[in-house]
Amino acid sequence: MIKEILARDLNPEQFIHEKVNEIKDTVGNGIAINALSGGVDSSTVTMIGHRALGDRLKTVFIDNDLMRQGEPEAVAASFRKLGVKVEIINAKEDFLAALKGITDPEEKREAITQTFYKKVFGQIVRESGAKFLLQGTILTDVDETIAGIKRQHNVFEQLGIDPQEAFGYRIIEPLIQLRKDGVRIVGKALGLPEGSFARIPFPGPALAARIIGEVTKERLDTVRKATAIVEKLLGHTDAFQYMAILHHDRVTGMRDGKRDYGQQIEIRCWESTDARVATPTRLSFEILEKLAGEIINEVPGIVSVTYNIAPKPPSTIEAV
Amino acid sequence: MIKEILARDLNPEQFIHEKVNEIKDTVGNGIAINALSGGVDSSTVTMIGHRALGDRLKTVFIDNDLMRQGEPEAVAASFRKLGVKVEIINAKEDFLAALKGITDPEEKREAITQTFYKKVFGQIVRESGAKFLLQGTILTDVDETIAGIKRQHNVFEQLGIDPQEAFGYRIIEPLIQLRKDGVRIVGKALGLPEGSFARIPFPGPALAARIIGEVTKERLDTVRKATAIVEKLLGHTDAFQYMAILHHDRVTGMRDGKRDYGQQIEIRCWESTDARVATPTRLSFEILEKLAGEIINEVPGIVSVTYNIAPKPPSTIEAV
Repeated sequence: MIKEILARDLNPEQFIHEKVNEIKDTVGNGIAINALSGGVDSSTVTMIGHRALGDRLKTVFIDNDLMRQGEPEAVAASFRKLGVKVEIINAKEDFLAALKGITDPEEKREAITQTFYKKVFGQIVRESGAKFLLQGTILTDVDETIAGIKRQHNVFEQLGIDPQEAFGYRIIEPLIQLRKDGVRIVGKALGLPEGSFARIPFPGPALAARIIGEVTKERLDTVRKATAIVEKLLGHTDAFQYMAILHHDRVTGMRDGKRDYGQQIEIRCWESTDARVATPTRLSFEILEKLAGEIINEVPGIVSVTYNIAPKPPSTIEAV
Repeated sequence: MIKEILARDLNPEQFIHEKVNEIKDTVGNGIAINALSGGVDSSTVTMIGHRALGDRLKTVFIDNDLMRQGEPEAVAASFRKLGVKVEIINAKEDFLAALKGITDPEEKREAITQTFYKKVFGQIVRESGAKFLLQGTILTDVDETIAGIKRQHNVFEQLGIDPQEAFGYRIIEPLIQLRKDGVRIVGKALGLPEGSFARIPFPGPALAARIIGEVTKERLDTVRKATAIVEKLLGHTDAFQYMAILHHDRVTGMRDGKRDYGQQIEIRCWESTDARVATPTRLSFEILEKLAGEIINEVPGIVSVTYNIAPKPPSTIEAV
């Protein structure tokens, strides 16, 4: 049973101090490694780990082609400013090959997990000689995995998987007692820049979780373009999270007076403090129409745009 | 080339007088038949035909199982009050059998057209001895069929089909110079009750056009329940048309803390005068949230609800 630390009870300096010491004790003179996605969880873990281990923490950014436009370079540059070196690993082909033909959401997550941990990251860890893996798992990930709602890519112990046996390294999860609001407080205390610690969540499966049906290079490009528009136009809101989802269903549309049997983008924008419950943001129709207009005009193949109006539960934050 | 009559140039009494005389001249002492769906087009045609032919117009309502809850009985009762006898034909099994396994929208429309005209209606016409068919085709149907956007079920000549040769009867289309706004004016002048002439459009494929993917008895029940909620909650608006669309894509949801890989309903509500161009109604979030809440609570299997925010074009009014 994991003991939750509520955001309101959290003393960030004390929390950081304790976690830094725990990591020092566990790793000793060894080498640790972590994979940074640029989200608030992995960014915070990177900073805690760096504070504990300095250069003995090797931080990699795995470019799985599921990320936003220019994301790998932007994340690496942002951490360079904080004195943390991040190595970008190009693993696009590995992930696309693993996702080929898969439409079931759980199989998709499983393919990403396996490719990430066994194939790509496993090899990096073996080559690095690290015996410890720092990971940004939070309590909500554990809850959702146990409940069987979504298999989070970073939860093993609770599923009866021994990572030491399965992958050859031990996992350290300094944030596992926190939820998203707590992580943001710790991230801020660690000096993460505003654009990072306050950044909207972008979970492990990344854009693959924003595609209903098969994940292909072309469909990733489609949802990536729509995501850029949604993030640009909703960046001024203080919503918890916002996203573009590419549907598999086709709907009838028309272009230049001719039938165009096209695709649909669903926009979600959430109000939430901890992702456990959430309600759609009451965006103005000025913004909604602007979102629809830009997506229709700038993203090839899209003839229809919807806005999600159902709360979580029974919805979930992501569609896949 | 059909000569359009714009709503603003329309003299409804003169129009009705002319059409009644044309129908009298064409049908002579013969018998005519028409199929009433309860929509404004077929309701208006029924009234014009009845005025021209009296009891020599036989009006049938074909229950294809694609209609709204209680619709056949409600339509027949409403016309009984106007002195028009309507015979309800139960053809549910014929339509469900014809739609089995079909997912392509055009094939769906084609299956409905063939079942309607060849199988069900063809037999009724042969048994009735009628040589004339009155039909509520309007100019927008013709335009969309010619442009190849949607194959309207009631457009033949423009597709090079001779109905006399194909089906054994001649088609009379008194409303073909009008658009929806013009038909409403004529319907009102003919004494159609408010709930009928001002009724939101519900085209021939009916609920089959509100289902993405295969049309089955179960999926019809789902979209019928959602439709009843949408029409109840949006009945007070003066929107041009509103509808519930059942998607085929599945999205992740949660019920009672467990994963529920469920279905999604998309709501569309349109502002338009003639259906050629349309924009989503700027509904309040109070209404949007109420719609989502009732659909989620009352329609089995639905975990997510969206609201369409894209204009026509490039969207179309219906999704299929």
